Amino acid sequence: MTADIAKVRVGLDERSYDILIGSGLVARAGAEIVDRLGKVRAMIVTDENVAAAHLEALQASLLHAGIEHATHVLPTGETTKSFAHLEATVEAILAARLERGDIVIAFGGGVIGDLAGFAAGVVRRGMRFVQLPTSLLAQVDSSVGGKTGINSRHGKNLVGVFHQPRLVLADTDVLNTLSEREFRAGYAEVVKYGLIDKPEFFVWLEKNWHQVFSGGDARKQAIAISCQAKADVVGRDEFETGDRALLNLGHTFGHALEAFCAYDSARLVHGEGVAIGMALAHRFSTRLNLASSDDASRVEAHLRAVGLPTCIDEIPGMKPTAEALLTYIMQDKKVSRGALTFILTRGIGQCFIARDVPSSEVLAFLEQSLER
Amino acid sequence: MTADIAKVRVGLDERSYDILIGSGLVARAGAEIVDRLGKVRAMIVTDENVAAAHLEALQASLLHAGIEHATHVLPTGETTKSFAHLEATVEAILAARLERGDIVIAFGGGVIGDLAGFAAGVVRRGMRFVQLPTSLLAQVDSSVGGKTGINSRHGKNLVGVFHQPRLVLADTDVLNTLSEREFRAGYAEVVKYGLIDKPEFFVWLEKNWHQVFSGGDARKQAIAISCQAKADVVGRDEFETGDRALLNLGHTFGHALEAFCAYDSARLVHGEGVAIGMALAHRFSTRLNLASSDDASRVEAHLRAVGLPTCIDEIPGMKPTAEALLTYIMQDKKVSRGALTFILTRGIGQCFIARDVPSSEVLAFLEQSLER
Repeated sequence: MTADIAKVRVGLDERSYDILIGSGLVARAGAEIVDRLGKVRAMIVTDENVAAAHLEALQASLLHAGIEHATHVLPTGETTKSFAHLEATVEAILAARLERGDIVIAFGGGVIGDLAGFAAGVVRRGMRFVQLPTSLLAQVDSSVGGKTGINSRHGKNLVGVFHQPRLVLADTDVLNTLSEREFRAGYAEVVKYGLIDKPEFFVWLEKNWHQVFSGGDARKQAIAISCQAKADVVGRDEFETGDRALLNLGHTFGHALEAFCAYDSARLVHGEGVAIGMALAHRFSTRLNLASSDDASRVEAHLRAVGLPTCIDEIPGMKPTAEALLTYIMQDKKVSRGALTFILTRGIGQCFIARDVPSSEVLAFLEQSLER
Repeated sequence: MTADIAKVRVGLDERSYDILIGSGLVARAGAEIVDRLGKVRAMIVTDENVAAAHLEALQASLLHAGIEHATHVLPTGETTKSFAHLEATVEAILAARLERGDIVIAFGGGVIGDLAGFAAGVVRRGMRFVQLPTSLLAQVDSSVGGKTGINSRHGKNLVGVFHQPRLVLADTDVLNTLSEREFRAGYAEVVKYGLIDKPEFFVWLEKNWHQVFSGGDARKQAIAISCQAKADVVGRDEFETGDRALLNLGHTFGHALEAFCAYDSARLVHGEGVAIGMALAHRFSTRLNLASSDDASRVEAHLRAVGLPTCIDEIPGMKPTAEALLTYIMQDKKVSRGALTFILTRGIGQCFIARDVPSSEVLAFLEQSLER
């Protein structure tokens, strides 16, 4: 491994693995896989967009390393996370006669990582799997931690397994082909790690976000710190029975907004929902006299500076009512036995899990937010 | 718990659970569940046959214990282990708004246990699940050990997860409604535990099999010893990376025969395939000068005494060629990287895992067996 590649170790006993972050990792994927996992066979699972831009490079890298492989290309977009595509992917892996020790390579954004990871988790009751995340969101969030899954008609990500990858290769160059909007949306999750418990990282982002957006060393550093932050939380709570809930900062409000927009990405993408959700979580904490309004304003200011939304009324189209949003919040799977759980904060980098938040407080806060 | 209920503990650290074996456990299911798992809500997953015979008793028991529940009834038979029925079961569980701590109750034979366990393993990335096995096969084999799954067009049980139940309730009375043939097929797996490493249990079965078939204490005892035997192996090797392969005694030949019969239960059911497979494994061990031919004859004699088949030519319909059977054996998932793995024996109760068995030896043995 060359010096310009950052490495983050996810410590989960016998399920531990490395995340490599840096330039040119798609081209070096074959060599890294053979080095770490030996002479395996592989199924590449990817989507149409990623295939058009990067598939040849990955296939060449695998061939060069002597990794025999097949490729399964899925449609781009959230609707791919369905039972039908899961079945087709599983059958494609079995048709290629891969064994438990062979690998599934998830080559794409969060949708591909979630679906391919789920498929790898259930073929022969679990085969090895490698993540090559191609979006900023996937590099800093969904490719770390082993959550895989598809959507149900009853909600997003309600069906899946915990299945850890054996290796994650985050190629920072690939992010250059993302749209500005897509990159920004992933950046919301980067900011989240600062806000949860890394105030110094948030300060660093306020100063260096331009460099993170333009690429190079600052981008690699921001991704590495984010992966390390997530790895630390996941290492403490792999199966989400406690601390891991902190990673939901901004997500309870965010998911409700996404659901209200019927997951129409023209109106709102996940990272934008999280940005608004984080701003709301800080303002809600201010209202509950937990945090200063200066901190809430500072969070808002940074999100706005990079071009992320912070208010519900920035979402184009029909405005939700407070009651409608509360209904979506109550339906979210993070509601445990009817009690509302929120990630609240005592200030920048001081988040905590608040259980039993009264729904009346949430409703009053949402009414106030929507009146402004 | 009353004194007439046997209890076997499956020791898997924080995934440990009890198997209760005895009379009247369906009627006491609600009370046992509340005692051990608290006030949960439940989804009963069952099939048409079991529902007709026993569903009312289970529902009454849950109602009496205050367990709110819904029921999902599936068609009877192996084809139920499909992606389509998995999806329908998962959506039914989600429609009932069950949470991670609620339970799925698998109420049926191996098919229902495998499918319902898989569904429980993937809803919200894993919810609690309870097995109420209603066939002898399920009571002594599939309901113990956490293997769940469905079939692929590429083979049986190729898609699934390891997901341990929280409790297994094996009601020995329910077995009275099984056909003689179905009970016998399950009995083949009981014999298997003796042959693997419990010679004294095999001797006991030779003497007491009539009582096991007629019910009462001997039946309960045989089931408890079988569950304990399986629990011991699973406790040593939960994810089948080593010793657990011993449980495949008779299964490599058996699966090949089932596949040759296209899983037509009119010709051959699983337990019958295992009976023939165990007889073949012992004869093959004799041929390889590992075991005495007296031991092989004794195994055959016991299986015949209870009415189980021991020769390939007892299967009605077209006879397979040795080459055809070898092809099926090579396709079995227990073939690791092309090398043939067999469970062979040095005598009754002295099985071991033989890796790298030459396919030429297998072929020659099959040719000889088919000529007789």
